[in-house]
Amino acid sequence: MRNFRLLIAYDGTDFHGWQRQDGLRTVQGELEPALQQITGRPCPCNASGRTDAGVHALGQVVNFHAETRLDPPTLLKALNALTPRDLLVRDIGVVPDTFHATLSALTKRYRYVIDNGRIGPDPLRLRQTWHVHVRLDEAAMNEAGRALLGTHDFRSFETEYPNRATSVRTILDLAVSRTGDQVTIEVEADGFLYNMVRAIAGSLMLVGAGKRPVGWLGEARAALSREAAGPTAPPQGLYLLHVTYPDDRHSP
Amino acid sequence: MRNFRLLIAYDGTDFHGWQRQDGLRTVQGELEPALQQITGRPCPCNASGRTDAGVHALGQVVNFHAETRLDPPTLLKALNALTPRDLLVRDIGVVPDTFHATLSALTKRYRYVIDNGRIGPDPLRLRQTWHVHVRLDEAAMNEAGRALLGTHDFRSFETEYPNRATSVRTILDLAVSRTGDQVTIEVEADGFLYNMVRAIAGSLMLVGAGKRPVGWLGEARAALSREAAGPTAPPQGLYLLHVTYPDDRHSP
Repeated sequence: MRNFRLLIAYDGTDFHGWQRQDGLRTVQGELEPALQQITGRPCPCNASGRTDAGVHALGQVVNFHAETRLDPPTLLKALNALTPRDLLVRDIGVVPDTFHATLSALTKRYRYVIDNGRIGPDPLRLRQTWHVHVRLDEAAMNEAGRALLGTHDFRSFETEYPNRATSVRTILDLAVSRTGDQVTIEVEADGFLYNMVRAIAGSLMLVGAGKRPVGWLGEARAALSREAAGPTAPPQGLYLLHVTYPDDRHSP
Repeated sequence: MRNFRLLIAYDGTDFHGWQRQDGLRTVQGELEPALQQITGRPCPCNASGRTDAGVHALGQVVNFHAETRLDPPTLLKALNALTPRDLLVRDIGVVPDTFHATLSALTKRYRYVIDNGRIGPDPLRLRQTWHVHVRLDEAAMNEAGRALLGTHDFRSFETEYPNRATSVRTILDLAVSRTGDQVTIEVEADGFLYNMVRAIAGSLMLVGAGKRPVGWLGEARAALSREAAGPTAPPQGLYLLHVTYPDDRHSP
């Protein structure tokens, strides 16, 4: 048995998220049958984390154990031939048995993209951005985001989700920038609570729109209550960019 | 009666092109009923040119005559409220009675985008690019394109289309560049024959893939035969970028 690590990208629009669910089209639900077809055995996959319905990935990491004589480049081609076009296996490699895409992840980096077009949403970016009409002040958003850097209890940005041992996480980077009509939020952390990036994006939007002062975001965080923060931004603006692991010498 | 000029953008994926056709969803077929609803009268629209099914526009220009007391900003809002989200009216202005979006156009500029990802198509650009597996040499494509600059008979790049008075056109600019996996062709001319940009893109692809030498494109043009040139590239990579008119002081 070898342990394989995949790097995958997908357009989340037509997937009900990563996790296999009966009767629904999911990324795991497309990937695992393709692997079983190739290897002749069930190949349960672990992902770095679940992505929700509509959320995209450029660098989702997945691992699975399989017995196969195929070399990684052949396996890559076979997988892409058997999976739908809105899912692309970008790379594949063999990793040590101990590697686990979920448990071994050190940090994750997400991007949230806002279409800030004044007249209306860009028709060519509808599936991949959140349109916000009000002109956003990206410098204010970037400044506000500093209050979230470091190790904190982030339950103000967590959609209720039972069985969480702790809502303490460490945000390593949070930056907001603008290119033309597009406002981009990038955030990296050692882990994220349920809907956390989308709650941060919705809260930063309130600051950018001038509906809350820059200092409000730190207060919202300190209140330890979901009602204290802003709305949960919609899924189609969110991208899982990159996941890092302790020993990336073995990475694809 | 005032003469209005619109600047519009659309995602061509779900439109059967610009021109109204019975029973089919077209850009004109969405725009004209919205205008009629606002003005109370039929408002036949002229576009700078027809775009085909699947072809996108960032800067299509349209004009129509209407009696309305609405000022342009109000008309813009009303139109965007009544048209679907994959069509955006970006700007509107009042122009002299003599302005005609089709007949007054001086030059048009198109972009053709190729996804040249080695492993497979980028799942997030499927609707908006043409995926070509073979690594393309964009410098060779750019060099080959020079043979099309200037005034020539371009019937080698014209899908058969009766009633054309002439297939002579003047290409003012043709440039091929690469950013990462994306190869972009931009071409500007005083007018284009039917499927001309897509035939040029398909021909440039053959050069980029090393299947034809750089000098072949000029020979294909001089042969004055559609069979001499390359394939017609698919519509989803094509964007109408910009149209220029003689007196752009009046432009929106």
